[in-house]
Amino acid sequence: MGNGSTQLAQAALYALSSDSPQPLSVVCAVPYYSGYPDLANLMRWYKWEGDANTFDKDTPFVEIVTSPNNPDGFFRVPVVKPRPDGHVVYDMAYYWPQYTAITHQADHDIMLFTFSKATGHGGSRIGWAVVKDKETALKMAKFIDVTTLGVSREAQVRASKILGAISDVYEGPEALPESDRFFEYFRRVLNERMDKLRESLRVNEFFSLPEYPIKHCLFTKGLTRISPGFAFLKCEDGKVKDACGLLRSHNIIGRGGPMFGMNDSFVRVSLLSREDTFNCLLERLSAIGAGGDVAVQINPS
Amino acid sequence: MGNGSTQLAQAALYALSSDSPQPLSVVCAVPYYSGYPDLANLMRWYKWEGDANTFDKDTPFVEIVTSPNNPDGFFRVPVVKPRPDGHVVYDMAYYWPQYTAITHQADHDIMLFTFSKATGHGGSRIGWAVVKDKETALKMAKFIDVTTLGVSREAQVRASKILGAISDVYEGPEALPESDRFFEYFRRVLNERMDKLRESLRVNEFFSLPEYPIKHCLFTKGLTRISPGFAFLKCEDGKVKDACGLLRSHNIIGRGGPMFGMNDSFVRVSLLSREDTFNCLLERLSAIGAGGDVAVQINPS
Repeated sequence: MGNGSTQLAQAALYALSSDSPQPLSVVCAVPYYSGYPDLANLMRWYKWEGDANTFDKDTPFVEIVTSPNNPDGFFRVPVVKPRPDGHVVYDMAYYWPQYTAITHQADHDIMLFTFSKATGHGGSRIGWAVVKDKETALKMAKFIDVTTLGVSREAQVRASKILGAISDVYEGPEALPESDRFFEYFRRVLNERMDKLRESLRVNEFFSLPEYPIKHCLFTKGLTRISPGFAFLKCEDGKVKDACGLLRSHNIIGRGGPMFGMNDSFVRVSLLSREDTFNCLLERLSAIGAGGDVAVQINPS
Repeated sequence: MGNGSTQLAQAALYALSSDSPQPLSVVCAVPYYSGYPDLANLMRWYKWEGDANTFDKDTPFVEIVTSPNNPDGFFRVPVVKPRPDGHVVYDMAYYWPQYTAITHQADHDIMLFTFSKATGHGGSRIGWAVVKDKETALKMAKFIDVTTLGVSREAQVRASKILGAISDVYEGPEALPESDRFFEYFRRVLNERMDKLRESLRVNEFFSLPEYPIKHCLFTKGLTRISPGFAFLKCEDGKVKDACGLLRSHNIIGRGGPMFGMNDSFVRVSLLSREDTFNCLLERLSAIGAGGDVAVQINPS
């Protein structure tokens, strides 16, 4: 257990680099989670090397595989060719049934999970890791012990209560009808939001969204459409140079493509806000294009 | 704010070493807090160098000054001669009125505090630092942000509630008579325990305890005897070779002198346990010497 999967990711890099005579290269295929570069550049014995697709150094390395991916929600597999001095860390933050179909029993060497994306309680800072190699696990535990002497007991108590309450609506005397259960409800909200978002985008024609596949989910035992917590928007060719700036000029805060290793034509917006905020997002997205935005973007103020 | 003063100490070492071309030496005068060696050896660009009294390298260094000190409760000042490449980090974990007289307004460059020793809520993992240099403070904040994305909100809410409740018994409509107030009550318990402990030790004559001075306290505005949360026991010359082992053979768990940079004739026991546990400690201490302990220690099993 760690103070969020952030600390566990740091602990994994610490553990995997601890016997390395030279700094470890840390890579992740684009588009990658915007927090990784800082994470991998904090310590001197690992180093962020960017896109895993173009990594060609012979240094020891760690590839982070975020699956489902942040920002775009797709399943991922490693892209760097396996080597004896190469490691893979799976960030499974979004492998929960509201975001994606649970298609397989995950069984990787190092897997990171977080309470944050399971329920939305990011402020609790509760993460956990499942690690096959005992030595690596012990080194990760040592990192957490020495840097923070463990994890807040208040946060642990609250997380276990909340996870228990979710579990109770699935089985036992407090079980609820399927449609009222936590993950099913959450998924329905996300699906509805994605539909509404697509509708807004169809009106202004500035942005496109990837199509998401429908898969069989082992958890809900039915077909389910992948429904990520973020929309990774792409500007239609040539229409806009700075997608993030365009949104900002309409009072929408997103994260620009470069933070994810992509160009300025991409921008990520969150679908995980409260209802009011999400409706406000839709309204403002619909208004784009009504006031000469292309000109604004070519000569941004 | 950090996940305990542990994370802030690590953050301070990170910040102070971040521009250093060579690893930073970390020292502290004996007897030092047993957690520092691991703390200072975790990262490759700082290195634990032990007792500050004997430090004579010309490497950049950090001296940790724990004042009042753990394990022995005394006030401390730096012992390494100041140099441009030398820094001092003050660990003020025990600078609270139940343990010591508040003799001055602390005004050091880097000061670490912790909720843990203020009230006993170590499990909350709440610490804070007061840092004069803005650059250093920003680097420390970055370390905390990148390694744990902040501090559990549950822990923050609980700590601020508890600190607020303590504050309320000192002033305002909920103020209590002096003897019922938090720090006064806590200090009285510690003073009574120290008296009882001395009485037990007087009976068996195996151990000695330092005498603590009486000082004027600016917080309670009266004279107060320093009353640390730990007893750092010293074996009487020649009586026992392994103080920690002797206690263990009487079912008392202490931390041996070597963990604090001292020899085996020292052992630290906690006075911060619950009443039952403390009374049990007294009983077991009183029994030492009744069963040929010196012989046991010379040929330990």
